[in-house]
This record gives sequence, structure tokens and C-alpha cells, in this order.
Amino acid sequence: MKYGARNQVTGKVVDIQKGGLMCKVKFEIPEKSKMCSVMTIESLEDLDLKQGDNVQLIVKAIHVLVIKE
Amino acid sequence: MKYGARNQVTGKVVDIQKGGLMCKVKFEIPEKSKMCSVMTIESLEDLDLKQGDNVQLIVKAIHVLVIKE
Amino acid sequence: MKYGARNQVTGKVVDIQKGGLMCKVKFEIPEKSKMCSVMTIESLEDLDLKQGDNVQLIVKAIHVLVIKE
Amino acid sequence: MKYGARNQVTGKVVDIQKGGLMCKVKFEIPEKSKMCSVMTIESLEDLDLKQGDNVQLIVKAIHVLVIKE
Amino acid sequence: MKYGARNQVTGKVVDIQKGGLMCKVKFEIPEKSKMCSVMTIESLEDLDLKQGDNVQLIVKAIHVLVIKE
Amino acid sequence: MKYGARNQVTGKVVDIQKGGLMCKVKFEIPEKSKMCSVMTIESLEDLDLKQGDNVQLIVKAIHVLVIKE
Repeated sequence: MKYGARNQVTGKVVDIQKGGLMCKVKFEIPEKSKMCSVMTIESLEDLDLKQGDNVQLIVKAIHVLVIKE
Repeated sequence: MKYGARNQVTGKVVDIQKGGLMCKVKFEIPEKSKMCSVMTIESLEDLDLKQGDNVQLIVKAIHVLVIKE
Repeated sequence: MKYGARNQVTGKVVDIQKGGLMCKVKFEIPEKSKMCSVMTIESLEDLDLKQGDNVQLIVKAIHVLVIKE
Repeated sequence: MKYGARNQVTGKVVDIQKGGLMCKVKFEIPEKSKMCSVMTIESLEDLDLKQGDNVQLIVKAIHVLVIKE
Repeated sequence: MKYGARNQVTGKVVDIQKGGLMCKVKFEIPEKSKMCSVMTIESLEDLDLKQGDNVQLIVKAIHVLVIKE
Repeated sequence: MKYGARNQVTGKVVDIQKGGLMCKVKFEIPEKSKMCSVMTIESLEDLDLKQGDNVQLIVKAIHVLVIKE
């Protein structure tokens, strides 16, 4: 399995919060950082995501914004 | 300084590669992972990015794709 | 503070509308135009956005679609 | 003609710069601000964009990042 | 009418589902495939979308992720 | 293998065009339509994409813009 994206990491589901249509899922990634994804609840159900599941988190490089403070 | 995005991490510039118009910048983030951003060379120059610079890397949660293998 | 994006403008918060999970915020930008952002309510709270706040609105050039009528 | 996006503005093409595959187009929008779009050169040619052309610039609200300094 | 995006297809609205703020619209595209868009309810109302309406569905090429299984 | 996105289709690579840093790949999808993706050449090489390869093309619903003519 290979992904056409420059950013990918394995994450473990630690929290799922549902709105009316969308949901927000939080992941623990290696070294105790966290990541967050928003998707439709329909996607959540297709993925059958549950706390503790391990998934791949993918971000195309073009979506990463760089800020210099 | 606060960002309206659920994913943010400090990264150190480790590589910059330029095409004709766009460039690709690689960052070392804590715990020796890497991230990658694509932006215009014009943005690169505005940021005045150089190897070793520390920057903020920002990704809105809606841009994170979840895949379950 | 510098942003790796080709579109940025200062906006003043004029309206905040919350759904279950996401929120929609409207901004007045110079010359009386408006812009709109959708984010998680969690981001809204981190930003502690209130009517009248001045913020930076950032859009990477790759996200701008051009249409010729 | 109606667009399913919360941000739209009329822009006039003021500059076109081509790389190998992508191009960057700058627009003057009302009140002398500027916007910038990156697209494939193939899209540029389909649009047949030339300096002085008036186009619609469209951004979905989810792509607008808010930063509070 | 021309769009600065490499992916466009005509779709017919077959389902609209509303959350508190966002909505999800499903489209039938030629050859009986389906596509799905998420937008604000405000956009939905501006578009005045109803079942059976024919619309253009536009995706910039940079947003298409390629996966090789 | 499951994807947290509402739009996915199998495509066959029919054309690859490289710029300095980015590349554009065209796909034939069922019923003779085409789709197009832009990614870094580095992603292309990781995917080891060649004409005739079959891949999954994934688009999150939030990236689909609806236009009513």
C-alpha cells in the first residue's frame, strides 16, 4: 500500500466527537503528539472507527502551511 | 499567536528543493519524524526560509485523510 | 510574523454561527467586503474569537479556483 | 451562475508566471488588493487567461485559516 | 463558462442531508457513479439546490490523492 | 482497506507529465471519463506509477465545489 502524499503517520484513535453531520476524531501519534481529522459521520461509519483503532493519517504537502514567528 | 487549526507542530527546516515555480521544504519535527510542505518560491522568499530555521507547521483538520488498512 | 501563503488579509469578526461541531465565522475586510471561514468550534474557542476581534485570514494560492464566465 | 462557496470576488489578471507544469496568476481585486492562484498550465490554457481578463475567484470557507496575533 | 480545474463533471442532485451548519449533497454522475460534496447550508441555499437539479462538480487536481494498493 | 473520504474511484494511469518539482498524472476511470491529479515527483516515485497501473483516486467531499449554471 503506497500513498501519493508526503506526510503520513500511524495514529491511534483516542476520541470521537459527533456533530449533526460531521465528526472530529483525535489520534495519538508516536511520541505522544496528537493529530485531529474532521470527516463526515458517514465516513466514520464506513471506516468503522473505534477508540484504540490504528489508522494511517495522510496529508498532501500542499496542505501544510508554514508560519515563521 | 493562535491558529484556527487543530494540527500544529514546530519544525526545523532540513531541506529545500526548488522547481520552476514551486518549492518543496522538508522539516524535522520532534522525535525525529519529518514533514513536508509545498509552496510557491515566492512564499519561500517571503518567509526567508533557510536550513535550521524553526517554523510552525499548520494543517486544518479537514485536510487530514484517515485510512484503515 | 510571516505566512507561507500568497493570500492574506486582516479581517474583523462580524458574525459567529455554531453548529454541533463546526462553526462559521464572517469577517469584514478592508473596503467593506466580507470573507467567511469554517472551522471546528474547538478552534474557535482556542482562538477565543469574539465580535470585533481583528485576525489574519490566510489562503494558500492553490486553494483559489479561477472561473471565467 | 451560482457557486457553492462562501468567498467569491471578481479579479482582473495582472500577472502570469509559468513554471514547468504549474503557473501562478495574480489578480487585482476591488480596492487595489491582490489575490493569487496557482493552477496547472493546462488549466491556464483552457481558461485562455490573458492580462486584463476579468474572472471569478472562488474559495470554499473551509480553506480559510484564521490566525490571531 | 470555463473552470481553472482539471476535474469537472455534470452531476444530478439525488440527496441532501443537513446538519446544524454544514450539509452533505449526493450527486449521480454519468454512468451511474456517485459523488458527494460537503458545503455550508448557506451555500446550499444560495445555490437553491433541489433533488433533480443538474450542477457542475469541480475538483482541483491538487486535491486528488492517489493510492496504490 | 477503507478510506475516510466520500469520493473514490479506480483509475488507470494514462499519462504522466513532469515539471521541475511537481507532476501531473491523468487517469482513465470507468466509462471512459478522465481524472487528473497533481503531486510531487517524489510521491510519483514512491508510488512507482507507470502507464497502465491501476490506483485508487480519493477526494474528500469538502473539496468538491458545486456550481449551478
